[in-house]
Amino acid sequence: MSNSATPPSFETLQYAVEQGVATITLHRPDKLNAFNAQMMQELVAAFDATDADDDVRAVIVTGSGRAFCAGADLSSGGSTFDYEKRYGASKEAAHRDGGGRVALRIFRSLKPVIAAVNGAAVGIGVTMQLPMDIRLASTDARFGFVFARRGITPEAASSWFLSRVVGISTALEWCYTGRVFTAQEALERGLVRSLHAPEDLLPAAQALAREIADNAAPVSVAISRQLIWRMAGASHPMEAHRLDSRAIQSRGQSADVKEGVSAFLEKRPASFPERVSHDMPDFFDWGSEPPFI
Amino acid sequence: MSNSATPPSFETLQYAVEQGVATITLHRPDKLNAFNAQMMQELVAAFDATDADDDVRAVIVTGSGRAFCAGADLSSGGSTFDYEKRYGASKEAAHRDGGGRVALRIFRSLKPVIAAVNGAAVGIGVTMQLPMDIRLASTDARFGFVFARRGITPEAASSWFLSRVVGISTALEWCYTGRVFTAQEALERGLVRSLHAPEDLLPAAQALAREIADNAAPVSVAISRQLIWRMAGASHPMEAHRLDSRAIQSRGQSADVKEGVSAFLEKRPASFPERVSHDMPDFFDWGSEPPFI
Amino acid sequence: MSNSATPPSFETLQYAVEQGVATITLHRPDKLNAFNAQMMQELVAAFDATDADDDVRAVIVTGSGRAFCAGADLSSGGSTFDYEKRYGASKEAAHRDGGGRVALRIFRSLKPVIAAVNGAAVGIGVTMQLPMDIRLASTDARFGFVFARRGITPEAASSWFLSRVVGISTALEWCYTGRVFTAQEALERGLVRSLHAPEDLLPAAQALAREIADNAAPVSVAISRQLIWRMAGASHPMEAHRLDSRAIQSRGQSADVKEGVSAFLEKRPASFPERVSHDMPDFFDWGSEPPFI
Repeated sequence: MSNSATPPSFETLQYAVEQGVATITLHRPDKLNAFNAQMMQELVAAFDATDADDDVRAVIVTGSGRAFCAGADLSSGGSTFDYEKRYGASKEAAHRDGGGRVALRIFRSLKPVIAAVNGAAVGIGVTMQLPMDIRLASTDARFGFVFARRGITPEAASSWFLSRVVGISTALEWCYTGRVFTAQEALERGLVRSLHAPEDLLPAAQALAREIADNAAPVSVAISRQLIWRMAGASHPMEAHRLDSRAIQSRGQSADVKEGVSAFLEKRPASFPERVSHDMPDFFDWGSEPPFI
Repeated sequence: MSNSATPPSFETLQYAVEQGVATITLHRPDKLNAFNAQMMQELVAAFDATDADDDVRAVIVTGSGRAFCAGADLSSGGSTFDYEKRYGASKEAAHRDGGGRVALRIFRSLKPVIAAVNGAAVGIGVTMQLPMDIRLASTDARFGFVFARRGITPEAASSWFLSRVVGISTALEWCYTGRVFTAQEALERGLVRSLHAPEDLLPAAQALAREIADNAAPVSVAISRQLIWRMAGASHPMEAHRLDSRAIQSRGQSADVKEGVSAFLEKRPASFPERVSHDMPDFFDWGSEPPFI
Repeated sequence: MSNSATPPSFETLQYAVEQGVATITLHRPDKLNAFNAQMMQELVAAFDATDADDDVRAVIVTGSGRAFCAGADLSSGGSTFDYEKRYGASKEAAHRDGGGRVALRIFRSLKPVIAAVNGAAVGIGVTMQLPMDIRLASTDARFGFVFARRGITPEAASSWFLSRVVGISTALEWCYTGRVFTAQEALERGLVRSLHAPEDLLPAAQALAREIADNAAPVSVAISRQLIWRMAGASHPMEAHRLDSRAIQSRGQSADVKEGVSAFLEKRPASFPERVSHDMPDFFDWGSEPPFI
């Protein structure tokens, strides 16, 4: 049972937790789940909810209907990306890109995040997937980093994420051409981990989520996630050694390791007592991020 | 028509612009296009020219005759790399490596750069390709990071670039052994994107250049290139979020996005009005680089 | 012949140098070569020895018996990782993780390091391989980043290394699930370079070591190793340009380059005179590392 009294409720998302796995479904199916300011705020809130709920051991993100997310809602036409006109941001003051707010929130997630890409994923529909950990796709999925074809540029911090997922050369080719490409190309270039028939996609994502939920200590998983994402940009392995020495020291005294090692030696499943909400070690501020300005 | 009155003229290079695509051909065919001080200076000048010419939407680099570039011109024998003897650099003062001058100039390019590797590419002949965006190769191509077999070391900032293209393990193996390897190995390890029969190589590079030139806004492409290359070394995605928030804010008010979104909604090709020479946003110094010392 | 009078002698390792190749064998076969504090100290000492011995041109690391290394010795049960209890480290003072000490020592190695993974490699048994340069595996090998199943976290600075070897997504999947996986999966995801029948593994590692020892200048190899590993975390290629300009300037005046270029022009094998123990250029402190605190 969830430790949050009521699950959060959203308009542009569906949110459900079942047997330790939260599923966040982008849900504007008549708009191909196009991204708007409300969806941005609700996605940030949804990842606040998954982090706060100890019953959530893994998160799946998918789309409602035939698309994953067709990109920014273009109902404002040519002024869609004119934040100065739409939000009153002055030319001097930087307006934080909405896709980037979502991407950085996912970056800070304490739970594993699996994208189940069921259909078209274009613009912010694909860049929002990059800070997710593992991408599974339907053979029907399509992808496009279409920014240069619209006269804009890659956003959502994707210039940092994309080359770390698929390499610099593919990142540049996709952003230069803006082409929409197949799930097969996404697999070959390393954007997605595996392809699945449409009806097998969610079951495959759930099986992977289960493998995590059934075997791994939640605090260990949360620390692992933050260590690996943060060290992806670190200049020297000493930065990892400083952090993981503290992490091992903390976890080495925990109730989790006593259970984990005992269960291993006794050849039985482990039942880890510690919880992300209370037991994250305090030698590092796990939710910290550099200031925007 | 080009906005530069006359195309630049070089001795070690051929330079031509046709239908939006510049082709730079290493041209010392009787020397297998061996790299010397003049070629270094002319390559820097050629990329100055492609950046300054708004008619250039993409750049192809290839070699004249049967080689791409056989490496440093060794006609000075064992003192080829003795810059103190040859150029009077003192042991204390650092002499800037010529290959590195070229590599860092290409790194700052505002136009996409495609290598069409037609034959042998050894030493600086391959390290100069690493800051190019996409490498296509003839099945006749050969590659070699031969430095350790000559008693020198990888140059042209290749220790930064190579592991980002092919991974650390392959980078080390190629630099340790100094072996000359096939186009097929280059493909399997990720150094090149695709292989082509010799007669199909330039057409394939031109088709890719066309896909960019025909579809993408030039200012969007230039910003995308700089964001992706520069963020490859950034410590945290917040660095990308700061820059791309400004980029989206700038492009979101541009004539390009109005045309790009309108063309998309009207299902017609876009004709982008803005130009790299005049319309790059000024929130960042796109040509900046850290000092050498 | 070795320039160290007597080869070092260890209890948890076998150490032998033959024809320019050092082989370090993890040797607690009745414990599946489980890692303990003594093995940690002896591994550090072994890499001190390979660096100091000019007769060592490459290093192979393998395991004795049927395992490579089954991970931390769990004979202390649930308090295995409780350093405060075991070593008296206070909660405030950070205790340096033992696996990380080994990993950072290998990171600073001046000789190429090849892992020949003969069997099970779990926990520290696999994370210790990540700062090695090239991993070859037996088809019998098995791997597991099992930390989260034991209630601890990835160590040995592996959060820095692993994503640079196999990408962020695979790094996270392996650390989240803690699953033990096959040599085939290790090959497909890029953890190992090649698979070999058990009886062919050491010969394959030795052939690769020979290719380096027979062809490459030792000082060039040592500089190449440090440049490539250190630049993997550098923010801008200018950092590589500063270092490799100095390296080329130094090597360009060396006896090695005179021999290397002459041998190449005369189409004969080179015999490089310079030695790592005396001839490393002094413009950089090759053994330096940031402080732990």
